[in-house]
Amino acid sequence: MTTTQSAALPPETGLARDAGAPLSAQLAGRYAERIAQRLLAPGTKLPSVRDCARRHQVSPSTVVGAYDLLQAQGLVEARPQRGFFVRAPQAPAARDALRPGPAPAAMAAPVDATALIRSMFQAQAGRPAPGMGTLPEDWLDAPLLRRARRRATGGDAAAGWLRYGEPAGDAGLRAALARRLADCGIAATPGQIVTTLGATHALDVVSRTLLAPGDAVLVDEPGWAVEYARLSRLGMRLLPVPRGPEGPDLDAMAALLAAHRPRLYVTVSVLHNPTGASLSPAVAHRVLQLAEAHDLTIVEDDTYGWMAPPHATRLAQLDGLKRTICVSGFSKILVPQWRVGFLAAPPSLVDRFVDTKLLTTLSTPAVLERAVAVCLEQGSLRRHAERVAQRLDAARARTARLVREAGFRFAAPPAGLFGWVDVGTDTERLAQTLLDEGWLTAPGALFHAVRRPTTLMRVNFATAQDARFWRQLRVAAGRD
Amino acid sequence: MTTTQSAALPPETGLARDAGAPLSAQLAGRYAERIAQRLLAPGTKLPSVRDCARRHQVSPSTVVGAYDLLQAQGLVEARPQRGFFVRAPQAPAARDALRPGPAPAAMAAPVDATALIRSMFQAQAGRPAPGMGTLPEDWLDAPLLRRARRRATGGDAAAGWLRYGEPAGDAGLRAALARRLADCGIAATPGQIVTTLGATHALDVVSRTLLAPGDAVLVDEPGWAVEYARLSRLGMRLLPVPRGPEGPDLDAMAALLAAHRPRLYVTVSVLHNPTGASLSPAVAHRVLQLAEAHDLTIVEDDTYGWMAPPHATRLAQLDGLKRTICVSGFSKILVPQWRVGFLAAPPSLVDRFVDTKLLTTLSTPAVLERAVAVCLEQGSLRRHAERVAQRLDAARARTARLVREAGFRFAAPPAGLFGWVDVGTDTERLAQTLLDEGWLTAPGALFHAVRRPTTLMRVNFATAQDARFWRQLRVAAGRD
Repeated sequence: MTTTQSAALPPETGLARDAGAPLSAQLAGRYAERIAQRLLAPGTKLPSVRDCARRHQVSPSTVVGAYDLLQAQGLVEARPQRGFFVRAPQAPAARDALRPGPAPAAMAAPVDATALIRSMFQAQAGRPAPGMGTLPEDWLDAPLLRRARRRATGGDAAAGWLRYGEPAGDAGLRAALARRLADCGIAATPGQIVTTLGATHALDVVSRTLLAPGDAVLVDEPGWAVEYARLSRLGMRLLPVPRGPEGPDLDAMAALLAAHRPRLYVTVSVLHNPTGASLSPAVAHRVLQLAEAHDLTIVEDDTYGWMAPPHATRLAQLDGLKRTICVSGFSKILVPQWRVGFLAAPPSLVDRFVDTKLLTTLSTPAVLERAVAVCLEQGSLRRHAERVAQRLDAARARTARLVREAGFRFAAPPAGLFGWVDVGTDTERLAQTLLDEGWLTAPGALFHAVRRPTTLMRVNFATAQDARFWRQLRVAAGRD
Repeated sequence: MTTTQSAALPPETGLARDAGAPLSAQLAGRYAERIAQRLLAPGTKLPSVRDCARRHQVSPSTVVGAYDLLQAQGLVEARPQRGFFVRAPQAPAARDALRPGPAPAAMAAPVDATALIRSMFQAQAGRPAPGMGTLPEDWLDAPLLRRARRRATGGDAAAGWLRYGEPAGDAGLRAALARRLADCGIAATPGQIVTTLGATHALDVVSRTLLAPGDAVLVDEPGWAVEYARLSRLGMRLLPVPRGPEGPDLDAMAALLAAHRPRLYVTVSVLHNPTGASLSPAVAHRVLQLAEAHDLTIVEDDTYGWMAPPHATRLAQLDGLKRTICVSGFSKILVPQWRVGFLAAPPSLVDRFVDTKLLTTLSTPAVLERAVAVCLEQGSLRRHAERVAQRLDAARARTARLVREAGFRFAAPPAGLFGWVDVGTDTERLAQTLLDEGWLTAPGALFHAVRRPTTLMRVNFATAQDARFWRQLRVAAGRD
């Protein structure tokens, strides 16, 4: 690490030799923090003493002292001949009890989801985060939100605060969403729409309503680890379907359908996370044929749809919300903190989803739903999304150039917010090294339903435009 | 129904003889609406043709026509020799699948929860609702809320909207809550507090974190049906503990603990819903001893605590949040629509609850949490709660007098918002008759984990002050 680079990075990347605390305690403290933040997940091996000493430019005995401290604190455990490993958090027995049904092997650890999520929150601390899952804050439009909120809370709005609001959600937002869905070619009445606390809550409502513990669920792999984790916690059996640039692997899907009779398929058609790929019309057609033949319900998570061109192929459009439930939210494009999301469902399922929403949160805050409705009604969200898409095109072009100049390759054509990049070496180990340099990355293992080493990583086009990151990645990957 | 009374009631209580639609279609429409709103739950028997004709002052053939229409619409079914019954909603098989584990008999129908909840929303339509579960809107303070919101969203607040916010919730609210809990004698650091989308969401987070499908859970009976329904939907076995004026029946509790080894006890210590009773210190002490002996965790739902005197006995106070989790919210006292709630937990459980919150909703809207924090910090919530308590004292005195004058008796001493009144005849049938007169009531069956006839009903002291209601109730109960 050169002086120039370290100066540009946050101060916590260097240990302070003149501080009051001994270096070993400082080093232990840093690892303890990462373990607490789940940046180091349970089961992760700490670097060897020699590696760690080299990375932090301290003596091996300092590292031994730090690891002993961590062990004394119960945060890591020594495994003879193998090294030090992060321990599972408290009460693992109770956690495992939440995954009943099939044997542990079949359910195996899609975990690390909290690591992924916490990194979304972590990124707020101002670190460069080429792995983050959202647009940078300064790409969003606070004045637009202030105007919408003012408009939504003017007049007699406070009178509405004294009521729970409609169980299905604010009627104005549901009407505006019906128009937005129509723009995407999806015919839905406001009565088919239920608002939720972000898309995450919508996915939760759907799976809690339609599934029973032990049910098999198809999921894309790679895919969104939070969804894997939630389904596992609900006691479901995950059936990963390999996800290619055109959509799911149809042969694999057909085999899983025949063998396991899953009830639900959870998928992202447009700008899939983490690959950035979108479903092709031909594969979409085949997926729906398979769903029809096997009486499968589909949840289509359209979280990143706002960043896609309007003509993108969606299952909900092709099947007219017959056996597809469309889920999306506004956190990724407009305002994360208001937590506004929704689902659009076949008419026969709407009441059941409203019931689940009632049982879990009663209603949702209509005051914020009204403000989002204003953004939709006045076209300000559409115009903002167009500006974001334009800016993202430029960022993507620059980042893609840096990826290629660094000698890495894309596993799917670059599109949307995320690139799926093959760097030729295990990205989970790489992530720890890069974290020492102050870069938060998203190793591919986070996106697998079953944990395994992978040379892929997810890159955020908006936050990976720093050439220094790619130089350091080359070094860490052993390319230089 | 006299002319005077019907004039004071909403127009839909009378069938329009000169309207375009035939009387049978109008009558069928009214029942269809009630079925849709779950005011008539699946399995409920419709009145006999003769009774129905009398109630609605139509001919028996009109009733027969109406019931035929309902049957043709698939809303009711005829059972030979027994009459007409409301049919289960669509896809009952899938619903039942959500209750795996023990045989259906053991799990039996705590349902009707949605009827209860929907009645909370229903009450908004301006009907007199002596059974409603909340304060009337005009007892809340919209100007107070407007001021708090302005203060919370002034300055650079919009910048915060661009972030997800802290996983555990707004730090300002958590600090203010720690002070409020201290006022109740409960020592909790802000780090032990997690914000949620109302108390309902807090209860959901706790049960999803601590329980696995098939686990046994102790619940108060009578008690809050939404909690029964949610636990059943999660696949838990409900173990009802009879709730007396001093607290749970300790012998019954000890026997259930020994026989079933439940993991969790969900209870309301202060102003229990529906009885209004509060836990005595002696019973509280014994409950905690039993919990200690059987390694039981307790969730104490303090939803109505804001209406109680500050010295009320809480388990969380006695045990110092060691094995008790305290849950509450602001919907009942301050602002239903903002959906702000929280849990305060033993330090060892906090991270697990935050994880569950992340998996189900990511974060919660800090913008609304900030506004509630302002109400706490400035003492405006405390002063408002004092005003409400004073007004409620007067309403309770008036309603209690009406109850006694009508010849009914309280099953527990009147306190807080709810009275638990014995009217000497099955209240579920009574509820249907009263609904015909325009009064929405809360029959006791709604508060039982296992459905059975009861002569008790829950009365809201704030909304049951109309002498006409008690006169009509006397008539309906056959006292006049």
